[in-house]
Amino acid sequence: MTKENRRLEKLREVMKQQRINSLLLTDFINVAYITGFTGGDSFALITRKNQYLITDGRFTEQAERQAPRFSIITRKGEMTQAVLKTVKRHRLRELSFESAAMSYELFRTYKKILAGVRLKPEKPLVQRLRCIKDPGEVRKIRRAVEVAEKALGRTKKILRPGITENDVAAELEYQMRLLGSEKAAFETIVASGKNSSMPHALCSTRRLRYGDSVTIDWGAQVDSYNSDLTRVFFIGRIQPRFRKIYEIVYAAQEAAIKVVRPGVTAQQVDEAAREVIRAKGFGPNFNHSLGHGIGLEVHEAPRLGQKVNVPIQAGMVFTIEPGIYLPGFGGVRLEDDVLVTGRGCEMLSGFTRSLKRQVI
Amino acid sequence: MTKENRRLEKLREVMKQQRINSLLLTDFINVAYITGFTGGDSFALITRKNQYLITDGRFTEQAERQAPRFSIITRKGEMTQAVLKTVKRHRLRELSFESAAMSYELFRTYKKILAGVRLKPEKPLVQRLRCIKDPGEVRKIRRAVEVAEKALGRTKKILRPGITENDVAAELEYQMRLLGSEKAAFETIVASGKNSSMPHALCSTRRLRYGDSVTIDWGAQVDSYNSDLTRVFFIGRIQPRFRKIYEIVYAAQEAAIKVVRPGVTAQQVDEAAREVIRAKGFGPNFNHSLGHGIGLEVHEAPRLGQKVNVPIQAGMVFTIEPGIYLPGFGGVRLEDDVLVTGRGCEMLSGFTRSLKRQVI
Repeated sequence: MTKENRRLEKLREVMKQQRINSLLLTDFINVAYITGFTGGDSFALITRKNQYLITDGRFTEQAERQAPRFSIITRKGEMTQAVLKTVKRHRLRELSFESAAMSYELFRTYKKILAGVRLKPEKPLVQRLRCIKDPGEVRKIRRAVEVAEKALGRTKKILRPGITENDVAAELEYQMRLLGSEKAAFETIVASGKNSSMPHALCSTRRLRYGDSVTIDWGAQVDSYNSDLTRVFFIGRIQPRFRKIYEIVYAAQEAAIKVVRPGVTAQQVDEAAREVIRAKGFGPNFNHSLGHGIGLEVHEAPRLGQKVNVPIQAGMVFTIEPGIYLPGFGGVRLEDDVLVTGRGCEMLSGFTRSLKRQVI
Repeated sequence: MTKENRRLEKLREVMKQQRINSLLLTDFINVAYITGFTGGDSFALITRKNQYLITDGRFTEQAERQAPRFSIITRKGEMTQAVLKTVKRHRLRELSFESAAMSYELFRTYKKILAGVRLKPEKPLVQRLRCIKDPGEVRKIRRAVEVAEKALGRTKKILRPGITENDVAAELEYQMRLLGSEKAAFETIVASGKNSSMPHALCSTRRLRYGDSVTIDWGAQVDSYNSDLTRVFFIGRIQPRFRKIYEIVYAAQEAAIKVVRPGVTAQQVDEAAREVIRAKGFGPNFNHSLGHGIGLEVHEAPRLGQKVNVPIQAGMVFTIEPGIYLPGFGGVRLEDDVLVTGRGCEMLSGFTRSLKRQVI
């Protein structure tokens, strides 16, 4: 549990710097990150000297196991009442909270019941800590990538005309499970033919046909950490128009990977890929951001997009996923996960992107 | 798309009754319910006469297909700016929002950029509509139950000493997928032996042993609608203590099912089951609510718990899931999904609960 220990200490350092005396964590992922407890539906309250995990009867045993440094409070009634009791016991005169993680409704409730206590909205604190992965986290993401790639290798074998998108997704998720994934990191996308022109198409009962492209966007979750990858296969042959956009997307991805290093900004990485696509005349067909952080969530900070002035730092792990989408025809996206190192980045994923090896 | 049409009309009726001129929907599930668009990351803005779905480039095509009655706005920049533009175009002087679905942070942002516009926090409006399922929704839940039960029937065959909890979950989810489930409705629970004493245990690599109980809590998702069920199996034999608590939990569940009808309150249904368990001396070991609504979300209104004074109405669909958990030993929970009818309720699930048929 030393891992959790250091995180709590880091959070306390941030609290000290920002003169935060007591902090209520309401976002379940942030609670999991700081406490180690993965059950959900629970809040953490951290003062200068004490730390509480407020949960309910379903989770008491699990909380005690997973968060040994925290005093576990098993609430009987509403969460708000349990928080109120703890605040009163310590005679707290102010309570900070992450304002993006508390609903306006909940804020009004606390405002009412915590009369005399100053409620202090804060910018995301834990999310910022979560941007930089520690070695244990990187190990888990590596495993999530490994499981995802191995499962795709097995699933690739069943791709053939006649099989439905749903069947492909079922096989892929099953293989990930058998290889140790807790669940699919997100709803697997298998988009074939024209369906692939929508970046976030759903799986359907459409059957693969000769000449189709098949975009597979999938990820595994291992020890609560996620991977997120995309590959495109071609059934039987590659139509010339697909060949063209595949090569551009590939080049755009390579260009972005090359510029990643500490000190460049997120938008510079995005721009490196976008420029390649724009130069070939497909700028409007790359209609989403280049990437996003991955970790306990599939989408977390930083976002790699236009106008995002955030500096890239060593220890960040994010996706790089340019795409070109042609409505009514189809699309291509390639997505890999990279770890920012001292001098550049390391690709965590390695499933082949070589065009000729994508033909099945 | 008449289904979506009526929902929009119903929402406008509620808006009229409550003197709401324009409503911003920020919860993706509520947006999906009202618009038909399932892609996420989008807001809906509904005025007396117009309705907008504000999305981004990834989803434009899908939004146009799924939400034909809505004017689709593809935002280029931030969501807040797109909302601001629409509010200005219509010269709206007030904007209502569901206050539980907007973060305090977002509220502050709108407060700042929408100077001169009155922001009106509202109680959940769409959630209340969602409580009562229309026939189309019930059909989808029925299918989600059917898929889940069929998949369990297939998975039951692989239960034997030596297989891991994870493998059981993998098989179950795979079978659901093949049968048409879009994904597992939630992280499947397979809790064997002592693990079953935690109501929300995770799957582990623990191998089933002779004499184990195996709690399986699982659900399918069909057309975005969820089922949520729990069964307990016994490997080889039933220990007397398990027999005892199984019979009590079964009786408690039956008692609750019997009292369900329009007009009773949620807490009365909860109490019917709780009383049975309390009378046998296991009151403190039933440490969660009796049930919850299911639909587009796995957990939605109404909650069936102590002190919940909500009247049960025809058209509601919820789980009934009493349990007894003995720390260090194990636990039993039975969970079924019921539809409230004019006079009582109909069980949507029918997988056998007969004790002798749970022994494998």
